[in-house]
Amino acid sequence: MPRSLPMLQIALDNQSMADAFKSTRLVAHAVDVIEVGTILCVAEGVRAVSELKALYPDKIVLADAKIADAGLILSKMCFEAKADWITVICCADINTVKGALKTAREYGGDVQVELTGYWTWEQAAAWYEAGIRQVVYHRARDAQAAGQNWGEADISAIRRLADMGFKVTVTGGLALEDLPLFKAIPIHVFIAGRSIRDAADPAAAALAFRERIAALWG
Amino acid sequence: MPRSLPMLQIALDNQSMADAFKSTRLVAHAVDVIEVGTILCVAEGVRAVSELKALYPDKIVLADAKIADAGLILSKMCFEAKADWITVICCADINTVKGALKTAREYGGDVQVELTGYWTWEQAAAWYEAGIRQVVYHRARDAQAAGQNWGEADISAIRRLADMGFKVTVTGGLALEDLPLFKAIPIHVFIAGRSIRDAADPAAAALAFRERIAALWG
Repeated sequence: MPRSLPMLQIALDNQSMADAFKSTRLVAHAVDVIEVGTILCVAEGVRAVSELKALYPDKIVLADAKIADAGLILSKMCFEAKADWITVICCADINTVKGALKTAREYGGDVQVELTGYWTWEQAAAWYEAGIRQVVYHRARDAQAAGQNWGEADISAIRRLADMGFKVTVTGGLALEDLPLFKAIPIHVFIAGRSIRDAADPAAAALAFRERIAALWG
Repeated sequence: MPRSLPMLQIALDNQSMADAFKSTRLVAHAVDVIEVGTILCVAEGVRAVSELKALYPDKIVLADAKIADAGLILSKMCFEAKADWITVICCADINTVKGALKTAREYGGDVQVELTGYWTWEQAAAWYEAGIRQVVYHRARDAQAAGQNWGEADISAIRRLADMGFKVTVTGGLALEDLPLFKAIPIHVFIAGRSIRDAADPAAAALAFRERIAALWG
């Protein structure tokens, strides 16, 4: 796949390694990024990262640890477990962001700021200034459950982040039919979780995402 | 100890169960609350909560999961593991807070909003309105490392939270000599981590905290 296409990430929000492996066995070949979701991190701890990287060394493995503090220690734990990318939560002190980024550079990894919940454009400018180049635009799971759909406010925020120079990952109950909404924006990664994991044929669901991405961005 | 005294909480920010147990063996008897720190959560997963509650059933066990999303699932995982209290991070969507609180009520537990990093008084009012009664005022570890000390801004924020009706836990590199700063405020819980865990005699350090608390608030 050409580099300019948005990548596809599977979010493993499973509650056990066994359950996660049931998904990755079927879809790992069809995705670019394997995400150790926060739920799996809490369920199994950082061994989830090392075991998935051991199984899939050619994939980007992302630890969605949503680091809020202790940036140096938590990022080191994740990178020692062979994470390629890690996430820091948007409300973290800028020193936490800087600490995680410093560690990432030592390990040749990268840090994404996870835009779940409350954040400001002033913070976004500070992240960029600190050296952050990846953000995750996240329509909160609990906001989804409360009935909030993708809207123009999401699209314009994502465009503004891309215009600032960020590589933007988009996630939050993303279905195949949502992809055209983002067509005019150079999205870095799309995350699909339940729409792939819970599909009758997860591999086919992942390939359908790739094909739609290629058709829209190719 | 009378109920009106601030309680003492030990933060277990260890990177393994074995290391955590080295601390709890020495100090569990001298504290009211045993906190499974975020670092220990990431290191070992939610089994850290169930194992510590199994060892210390008479203590309040707190899972500092700093939940940012998926409030229903993550809170259920923590309460199923027998956590008494859990934390939600301050930037979480209000629906995440409500989801965690709903689960807490089903299990007879409670939810603390963890004030690490960026938050607003408008959010604080929304948390109270949603039913939150506990907050954790947290001087960020990375802010501490950057040289920011306890100051009048901290004290007045803590007082304002208490005046709003919150039971306030105070933490963030708290040393014995910092306690008098908070004397005029009805603090709910003081958290000590490294100042107890890394002491030459951790049990004596914990008892020294209790004595100072009794002297100041008794």
